[in-house]
Amino acid sequence: MCGPDQAIVIKCSKCSSGVVPEATENNSRLNLPADSIINLDHGDPTMYESYWRKLGNMCTVMFTGYQSLSYFANPKNLCWFLEPKLEEEIKKLHNVVGNATVEGYHIVVGTGSSQLIQAVLYALSDPLNEANPISVVSAAPYYSSYSEVANFVRSGLHKWAGDAHTFDKDGSYIEMVTSPNNPDGAIREPVVNKAQGMLVHDLAYYWPQYTPITGPADYDIMLFTVSKCTGHAGSRIGWALVRDINVARKMVKFIEINTIGVSKEAQQRAAKILEVISDSCSQTVRPPDQLDNFFEYGQHLLTERWKKLKDLVKFNELFTLPKFPLQYCNFTGDFTEAHPAFAWMKCEEEVDCEKLLRGHKILTRSGKRFGSDQKYARISMMSRDEEFDLFVQRLSSIHGIANGN
Amino acid sequence: MCGPDQAIVIKCSKCSSGVVPEATENNSRLNLPADSIINLDHGDPTMYESYWRKLGNMCTVMFTGYQSLSYFANPKNLCWFLEPKLEEEIKKLHNVVGNATVEGYHIVVGTGSSQLIQAVLYALSDPLNEANPISVVSAAPYYSSYSEVANFVRSGLHKWAGDAHTFDKDGSYIEMVTSPNNPDGAIREPVVNKAQGMLVHDLAYYWPQYTPITGPADYDIMLFTVSKCTGHAGSRIGWALVRDINVARKMVKFIEINTIGVSKEAQQRAAKILEVISDSCSQTVRPPDQLDNFFEYGQHLLTERWKKLKDLVKFNELFTLPKFPLQYCNFTGDFTEAHPAFAWMKCEEEVDCEKLLRGHKILTRSGKRFGSDQKYARISMMSRDEEFDLFVQRLSSIHGIANGN
Repeated sequence: MCGPDQAIVIKCSKCSSGVVPEATENNSRLNLPADSIINLDHGDPTMYESYWRKLGNMCTVMFTGYQSLSYFANPKNLCWFLEPKLEEEIKKLHNVVGNATVEGYHIVVGTGSSQLIQAVLYALSDPLNEANPISVVSAAPYYSSYSEVANFVRSGLHKWAGDAHTFDKDGSYIEMVTSPNNPDGAIREPVVNKAQGMLVHDLAYYWPQYTPITGPADYDIMLFTVSKCTGHAGSRIGWALVRDINVARKMVKFIEINTIGVSKEAQQRAAKILEVISDSCSQTVRPPDQLDNFFEYGQHLLTERWKKLKDLVKFNELFTLPKFPLQYCNFTGDFTEAHPAFAWMKCEEEVDCEKLLRGHKILTRSGKRFGSDQKYARISMMSRDEEFDLFVQRLSSIHGIANGN
Repeated sequence: MCGPDQAIVIKCSKCSSGVVPEATENNSRLNLPADSIINLDHGDPTMYESYWRKLGNMCTVMFTGYQSLSYFANPKNLCWFLEPKLEEEIKKLHNVVGNATVEGYHIVVGTGSSQLIQAVLYALSDPLNEANPISVVSAAPYYSSYSEVANFVRSGLHKWAGDAHTFDKDGSYIEMVTSPNNPDGAIREPVVNKAQGMLVHDLAYYWPQYTPITGPADYDIMLFTVSKCTGHAGSRIGWALVRDINVARKMVKFIEINTIGVSKEAQQRAAKILEVISDSCSQTVRPPDQLDNFFEYGQHLLTERWKKLKDLVKFNELFTLPKFPLQYCNFTGDFTEAHPAFAWMKCEEEVDCEKLLRGHKILTRSGKRFGSDQKYARISMMSRDEEFDLFVQRLSSIHGIANGN
């Protein structure tokens, strides 16, 4: 989650409509003062800007004044506000990457995956059982937004019930299974495993840059988001693959009441971006040296960053990081380990990790927000180069708390 | 509200990203079969397509792949996801039209005004008074979505309490004041008028094409939407002008949790569209004969349509329409009457108006949905020409129910 109350160093885009900003060859154009506050609290995926900048106008989209006035994108579709081109490109990309089955699924587009999470809670709740809202759980450490999203309007349909490990209520429940997990990058399975459970698989990070693709996921409800797949968080586009038509229909109803559909401009741009990514993965489509494989590019960047961070932590008595197994990735055809979007860092002494880092002008998210301990902090690995480098530089100066660091 | 379950005749846009569809001089390109179902149920503002088509590429916007990746649009703004250019153009347009005061107001952008209505209910509710959700009322006939939006997730914060005319509960309440009113076009004032009331002015239709502009509105909370102002319903952009910073802050919080902001593409395109509209109103900016005044164009179209409809109804014993007073419009400098976006048609005999019209393949919305009577139906006046003409043609054949019509 983002928040307006946090000082951040990312310069906002000054490019107004139709005006293309000055292009540079790389993304190190921030010229951060050495004492800048570095915000690695939210997962703002600006790391990918460098890839898209290299492509120049290759995936530019344009809109005339007379396009897309109607509320409707495809009145014949169950999801009547889903742009046909986006549906097509979502299916194509999943087939190219091999990370999810699309055959036999309904696609529901949402204004980011936050809206889809709410839509799915709405769809799985029982409107006739108002006295007893359905419990929503997830295994700690869990994505910090789940509790907020489940409870913020005090819905009588659903209620956050915390850590799935300690959930022992009878009756139906919804378990959010986030895999790879946010914040810690772990591959997850459901943990409650009772007959009346309904599972929602949040697969926002199940893409090759973050984790080995071990096979196509084929769960009942799967959530994805453009923000973490391509880096275009500003577009607010997510999608759900839903097996049961009635669940899909109720999700569409939620989005209809909540926002009367999803921005057509954002959908059409997302379709183009996904198309270019699929092309970048194809040996036959892409012109050599013109279009790097998007996922290899992202994986390379994250591998480098994780190496820097691990090298630093290896010789530091204060911090530890999770370890990830080598696994065969069907997409790359290699044995690789995960390079998650977030570092779930632990302070080995009894230290409030978020507070410690804040003292060094590094903003992160405390483990407490994830149903875990303040010894942990979640650190975004998806910032621009300059911010990441400054973060590593500052971290290297912290060796313990005895000396006030 | 739109719905996926209704057959509609509007052809969906086939223009995929970056591909400009074949331009034609007018909007009568549907070639509707004479027996088509005509959907005038929802207020899909495709009427405006003809204006924007005439402009060709004058308000085309483009997006490169590397623009607007970040969640943030302007981190220094209270509404951190609001594009600065959109904020500027909203203020300019209100000043040009003279329909709302912007000085001293905070602007909150939303994914259409539906999201803003929910944000405002959230902001005005008392989170500590969960046992007693705040009542939400509006004078009948009221916008059919208010009840749905207030109740759909069974919020413990707020609850729909129906017609403001009959509301007599003690304690605080929220009254939605829609002016001009949806469905009947009437100019509205609050009706409950108790000390503990909070007012939300929904001014979606307070634009010169629909109603005389009698002065700048300066209420505490005012809602507007691009859908009804410019016709770009597919973009899902609305805005609120909010006097109290704490209310604005809570609305931003709602949108942050609900959708983590609002599509940057849609905002930037909306900014360009509003800019062109402001230019179209200026004698100095617009090149003669190149850019018709947008509001005059819309007013002219609606005036023509209302004339056709009134002429027909005048000689028909079955139907009646509301009457609107002549008022001086500060924007046009003329005495005009309202030409609302919807016709609130009444069947004089004891006839279910929506059902009667449905029998003639004209889909409208029953008066019952607006807290009124089935004798009434709301009919969109904002369809494309061909649909409107077919509607009028069919309506002219209905003269009573005795003969089965």
